[in-house]
Amino acid sequence: MSRVLILSKHAHEYHRLVEAAGLPGLELLAAAASPSEALAFGEKFEVVFGEPSLIRDVLARLQDLRWVQATYAGVEPLLDPSLRRDYLLTNARGVFGGLMSEFVFGYLLQHERRMVARYQAQQEQRWDASITGTLRGKTLGLLGVGSIGSVLAGTARHFGMTVRGYTRASGSCPEVDTYYHGSSRLDFADGLDYLVGVLPNTKETHHIVDASLLGRLPAHAVFVNVGRGSTVDESALVAALQAGKLAAAVLDVFEQEPLPPGHAFWHTPNLLMTFHTSAPSVPGDLARLFIENYRRYAAGQAPLYQVDFERGY
Amino acid sequence: MSRVLILSKHAHEYHRLVEAAGLPGLELLAAAASPSEALAFGEKFEVVFGEPSLIRDVLARLQDLRWVQATYAGVEPLLDPSLRRDYLLTNARGVFGGLMSEFVFGYLLQHERRMVARYQAQQEQRWDASITGTLRGKTLGLLGVGSIGSVLAGTARHFGMTVRGYTRASGSCPEVDTYYHGSSRLDFADGLDYLVGVLPNTKETHHIVDASLLGRLPAHAVFVNVGRGSTVDESALVAALQAGKLAAAVLDVFEQEPLPPGHAFWHTPNLLMTFHTSAPSVPGDLARLFIENYRRYAAGQAPLYQVDFERGY
Repeated sequence: MSRVLILSKHAHEYHRLVEAAGLPGLELLAAAASPSEALAFGEKFEVVFGEPSLIRDVLARLQDLRWVQATYAGVEPLLDPSLRRDYLLTNARGVFGGLMSEFVFGYLLQHERRMVARYQAQQEQRWDASITGTLRGKTLGLLGVGSIGSVLAGTARHFGMTVRGYTRASGSCPEVDTYYHGSSRLDFADGLDYLVGVLPNTKETHHIVDASLLGRLPAHAVFVNVGRGSTVDESALVAALQAGKLAAAVLDVFEQEPLPPGHAFWHTPNLLMTFHTSAPSVPGDLARLFIENYRRYAAGQAPLYQVDFERGY
Repeated sequence: MSRVLILSKHAHEYHRLVEAAGLPGLELLAAAASPSEALAFGEKFEVVFGEPSLIRDVLARLQDLRWVQATYAGVEPLLDPSLRRDYLLTNARGVFGGLMSEFVFGYLLQHERRMVARYQAQQEQRWDASITGTLRGKTLGLLGVGSIGSVLAGTARHFGMTVRGYTRASGSCPEVDTYYHGSSRLDFADGLDYLVGVLPNTKETHHIVDASLLGRLPAHAVFVNVGRGSTVDESALVAALQAGKLAAAVLDVFEQEPLPPGHAFWHTPNLLMTFHTSAPSVPGDLARLFIENYRRYAAGQAPLYQVDFERGY
């Protein structure tokens, strides 16, 4: 019999969805929106499903803890080396790919179809029949080809793009045309029309998008970051945009969030910012993942998407 | 031996592309950007490849004419009943689907992801982390499921949408979930999240998007027209948008183009206009279609995409 804690601002919606699944062997299914609400249920939980930053605050108290299912892909709050690691941590992969794909290709298409310029023409009551571009035939570079990158590769192919993938070592997505690894980072970037960052925050990915990588992009290129802000040398990006060495950038993530007042990004030309909203958590999707993983856990099988504490994802 | 006239503002680019294909049996391949330039080559042409509005002006003079390949999908200038019809007319289908798909889904995603509101927040230096929508699970209705509609259906499926199709009678696209025909027009529209018009200009499609059809759409729905302007009752659309009975409309085509100054559309709220640019002709694509069709013609086979003069497409 398992005691399960749901700890999330969406706790009550998750509770409803998980309860409706009629999972086997549940002794208690507690729903809490904050650490203090959670501890009102006591400290005896084997399983926690929720937001890493909230779980962090109760982590030391849960003596029976065996498994944590995070509602996010990024689990940085639980990776601090001072925290316990004597439990199984799984994150939310396989959930955000579709939403990320809508986000990335929405902005790529907005750029190609010059939607902003077209709208300005309309405001000026000007019939602007100038020709716009197409994604077809363009080359997209994916910095990171995990579960999200693979979905992005599929959408890129759907629109007739060529796809390069940069990964640490592996390369198994059939919709990536060419893989690059390790020291071929600059070759990977060379001549890309679009560079899309989907990397997690790890030691290896810190400032991987730096001046030398940005310098390999042509002036018409667009950079989109939906991974983590720490992967980008923000000063180098500002410099590239100010010098017109890059046509545009779309950033959903930042080294410091919320972006502080006075940050150069607020005044950088051709930069669009979306404030960490590229893949909003959809409770139904995350509840489905938890339910699937709980069934595996209850059956003594390995849950999907285990995080390697050392590697960081 | 065939004498071929290319009559288009892109005539010289087409000439280069067609010449490079080394087509069999070409006696003359003339490139002209205007009717007067064309007639400088004489009147003895069996085959014409070009723009319907330009071809119309030389049509009566070409005694040997057997086949016209239009560079557009819409061939209205050649359908006037006063004009000759003693030749084979083929149009440019199977070429624009990908571009139309980029256009339509670019605007659908711009709407779902509230790109304009997000940009305004950035201008105000405001961290706007409000949640946006998704195409997944939404229902798209296609008014017309020809070669373009079929590609749109495929992209809708890629993004996890449900697809309804409205056609005269046929229904063979596997990516349409449910087909509607004839008098079920209002059932087709009932409750759609997105309505996309891809219909040609014919007697049957005139003002098919009228007040009664728009009245079946929920207030959060968005209408996109990439077909022909004549398919929309423009006054009814203005009224629906002004009354907030429709969230937005994106129009690429109009009853009168260019849209005249003073037209209500210039001042209608939640209306975006793109000035007949949704699927720019890409000379390489059209040359490829002409080359394929010329080979069929030279081999005595039927070229692809013959237009029925009566039906109008």
